[in-house]
Amino acid sequence: MRSLIDILDLSVEELDGLIQTALAIIDDPARFSQCCRGKQLAALFFEPSTRTRLSFESAMLALGGQVLSVTGAGGSSVSKGESIADTAKVVSCYADIIAMRHPQEGAALVAAENASIPVINAGDGGHCHPTQTLADLLTIYREKGRFTGLTVGICGDLKYGRTVHSLIGAMSRYEGTRFVLISPPELAVPDYVRAALRESGIPFSETASLEESLPGLDLLYMTRIQRERFDDLALYEALKDSYVLNEEKMKAAKADMCVLHPLPRVNEISVAVDKDPRACYFRQAFNGKIMRMALILKLLSEKEERRDSRRYVHHLHCKNARCISRTEQELPQAFYAVPGEGIFRCRYCDQEG
Amino acid sequence: MRSLIDILDLSVEELDGLIQTALAIIDDPARFSQCCRGKQLAALFFEPSTRTRLSFESAMLALGGQVLSVTGAGGSSVSKGESIADTAKVVSCYADIIAMRHPQEGAALVAAENASIPVINAGDGGHCHPTQTLADLLTIYREKGRFTGLTVGICGDLKYGRTVHSLIGAMSRYEGTRFVLISPPELAVPDYVRAALRESGIPFSETASLEESLPGLDLLYMTRIQRERFDDLALYEALKDSYVLNEEKMKAAKADMCVLHPLPRVNEISVAVDKDPRACYFRQAFNGKIMRMALILKLLSEKEERRDSRRYVHHLHCKNARCISRTEQELPQAFYAVPGEGIFRCRYCDQEG
Amino acid sequence: MRSLIDILDLSVEELDGLIQTALAIIDDPARFSQCCRGKQLAALFFEPSTRTRLSFESAMLALGGQVLSVTGAGGSSVSKGESIADTAKVVSCYADIIAMRHPQEGAALVAAENASIPVINAGDGGHCHPTQTLADLLTIYREKGRFTGLTVGICGDLKYGRTVHSLIGAMSRYEGTRFVLISPPELAVPDYVRAALRESGIPFSETASLEESLPGLDLLYMTRIQRERFDDLALYEALKDSYVLNEEKMKAAKADMCVLHPLPRVNEISVAVDKDPRACYFRQAFNGKIMRMALILKLLSEKEERRDSRRYVHHLHCKNARCISRTEQELPQAFYAVPGEGIFRCRYCDQEG
Repeated sequence: MRSLIDILDLSVEELDGLIQTALAIIDDPARFSQCCRGKQLAALFFEPSTRTRLSFESAMLALGGQVLSVTGAGGSSVSKGESIADTAKVVSCYADIIAMRHPQEGAALVAAENASIPVINAGDGGHCHPTQTLADLLTIYREKGRFTGLTVGICGDLKYGRTVHSLIGAMSRYEGTRFVLISPPELAVPDYVRAALRESGIPFSETASLEESLPGLDLLYMTRIQRERFDDLALYEALKDSYVLNEEKMKAAKADMCVLHPLPRVNEISVAVDKDPRACYFRQAFNGKIMRMALILKLLSEKEERRDSRRYVHHLHCKNARCISRTEQELPQAFYAVPGEGIFRCRYCDQEG
Repeated sequence: MRSLIDILDLSVEELDGLIQTALAIIDDPARFSQCCRGKQLAALFFEPSTRTRLSFESAMLALGGQVLSVTGAGGSSVSKGESIADTAKVVSCYADIIAMRHPQEGAALVAAENASIPVINAGDGGHCHPTQTLADLLTIYREKGRFTGLTVGICGDLKYGRTVHSLIGAMSRYEGTRFVLISPPELAVPDYVRAALRESGIPFSETASLEESLPGLDLLYMTRIQRERFDDLALYEALKDSYVLNEEKMKAAKADMCVLHPLPRVNEISVAVDKDPRACYFRQAFNGKIMRMALILKLLSEKEERRDSRRYVHHLHCKNARCISRTEQELPQAFYAVPGEGIFRCRYCDQEG
Repeated sequence: MRSLIDILDLSVEELDGLIQTALAIIDDPARFSQCCRGKQLAALFFEPSTRTRLSFESAMLALGGQVLSVTGAGGSSVSKGESIADTAKVVSCYADIIAMRHPQEGAALVAAENASIPVINAGDGGHCHPTQTLADLLTIYREKGRFTGLTVGICGDLKYGRTVHSLIGAMSRYEGTRFVLISPPELAVPDYVRAALRESGIPFSETASLEESLPGLDLLYMTRIQRERFDDLALYEALKDSYVLNEEKMKAAKADMCVLHPLPRVNEISVAVDKDPRACYFRQAFNGKIMRMALILKLLSEKEERRDSRRYVHHLHCKNARCISRTEQELPQAFYAVPGEGIFRCRYCDQEG
């Protein structure tokens, strides 16, 4: 049994396999419409994310499977103080595969290690959201026909943007990728991302100007800038419009540039841009469903366990208040050494110990 | 692709078609049990209405289809400030048809214009609720065997009663309909309803007495009187019992009169009346499921677009605080001229501009 | 049509039948995977209980049926003040069988008497929870191979523990059962339970010490002790650990003792005990799904009405604030005489009148 917690759990070859399956599904959905007959997906959404939940449920139903749905901690035994481990063990008695969204970082990993069925991380706090990255990758492949030699602009909140970090990690594995990181200095990528890029020798530049960056981009990945992120609201008001993509700015972009967005959008892309053929974000939502179908098929067919070749030390304590290791019953602390960095990170939330 | 926003979107012929389909379903449900195999209904209920949601979901399942369910804005991306248009575009990537309930008036219309799949209005604020009227009409047809020559009593809150206005609109299209409008003066029908009845020459009378009206009725459509509607609670207390239907009052009614109620009932019909064969309101709930089955079948088979032959002006601004045009991103104001009335109404909520 | 409100609605023979069906399902699930094709279960959960709801839904889906799901009074017409009777009548128009969880005691009985389809009590306040007891019984049978001659330890909150009272009632019907009732005096079994045991001559002892009781037990049924139950928190703190089952205490137990727990567990069983082969509580969760499958099959095949041979008196008034008879519209009070006790109990909540 395999689970998917972090996008990097999948090798480049496995990713290619998922994309080939996805293309086959798009080509002939009927061929796959009974693949999961008699199987049940438990969609455990302990925080609201309607889009992601519907995408998973729709994917399972399109494979001929069935769905058990849990939304909000309120309607959950979690509210009676049950541990993630127990929830995972019990749901394993009912369903064949779990998709879990949880506000605590590392929750999906704890579930995977206690469930007897595959677990898909549908978002664990600010930590990982691998199926969003699968949607991004299928969209890039379908729109550009390749993953290599692309200049990828990423705009908005690069500091807290979970999907941004996963996308950088995933695209860094392809030949000739260059990143243009577009954000106000307050929301630039964290140091460890910058360090990882330098270490693996991926060319990247950082800028505050969307307008100046546009002409050079093959892809533009837009994200939302949340006012809550700013101590200085005047500053927020001053710069927010410069990160809004509109028809005017689109004129400066290449004719074949792709605009992606994880959605939901608030106002960072003008509705007027939707009819521009370069606007890919709604096709991206469709691709998200298809990749989830491919992933469910893959995990239900996997026999082997999830690999974990890391060595752990247990003398440190995680400082991340949102880490599952803070609340989960009788869960031992565990940290791994980061090669080169000479530091240790929590195995659950990957925060420095 | 066709959507159903307002009951009057359906011609009398289309309504007859739906009723014929409904009768065929009742006659042989098994014949229809696989009609929607592999299709998904997205039930998007952004405000609670368990009965209506279950009716839609049960209808889709009885057709062999599947259901995606969203309940409460809390569990929805809407809470992240997503527009109705975006929600409709994204859900179109997952499902084959949408049933939407939303507190804002005009929300279903906005969804229909942005979705690439049919949208059924399952209630948009105090505006429209066409599938309730479909349930009412099938019940009338099954109980009376015709739509023509019926004296229709409507009792209770005729001022705010959304289902009441739709029923009046629908029944006004049939030969020989007469209305007896029974309510306290505070809750009489709005002027525009009265005006419309006069204009199309439908005979109607208005009275405050249920008791006196009963003997002449072929149908009695009961609705709830909510105390919140009264400024003067003493007045409410004084008259509320006179609008409660009980065994005693039923003695004055025709032997073949039908009692309808959209449900939920609070106490406006005594439980003791339930066993009276003239009490049709639970059969009405069953008919609601059947008509939703017929409607889903019709809309999934329709090819053409929803017709809209109106001309719109854009210089006015909607004053209705609950209108979707107040909040929806980049949605242009639009008003249509009302023939005869010499006024303009908002295309989304139909309020005077 | 039959409903299940209280575990004692089922005769010992009927229970054996359910267990035989359950064993057949475990032996060859595929044989049952289409038994409920085209049938719909309405899971009406008017208070949160994710585990129980998922168990019912998963059971119905595994039988090839479909599910309508209602969670939380918030999302329900009940919030509009609808009676349980009306809800039951309306849902009977949509579904083929109902599983109902409701905070008021007697709610499931009222639903059963108004529905035209079978109703399963999935928990009515602190009153009954028969399908939990079905899970307990299948677990006992599968682990011990028999129901007779067992010494059953029950530990924790025996005063309010709904599942505890049902289990005592069910096991009291088997030859050679002995009970060891382990709790702090504050949380000992209610007098009527003690009286019933004495009357039917079932041997039982009461003790405050889990440790001393362990060696003699064939089964240990653990339940949670909630701090809210204590007026004196110091007392709670003082004794709570003595009711926590851990590896150390397990050393004193028989090699073939079974540990059961209705779940969710908070900390009354150490996670370290999970890997002990005598820990049956997760298998118990699996058994709960299987027994619900067996029960759904039985009730959907039953023709006869639920039996009620009791005589009722109507001059008393129920004093239980959580009894459905306090709020349900036009519901007559009804009390039955308890043989021997010379008292009357409410037919809805079984509280003394």
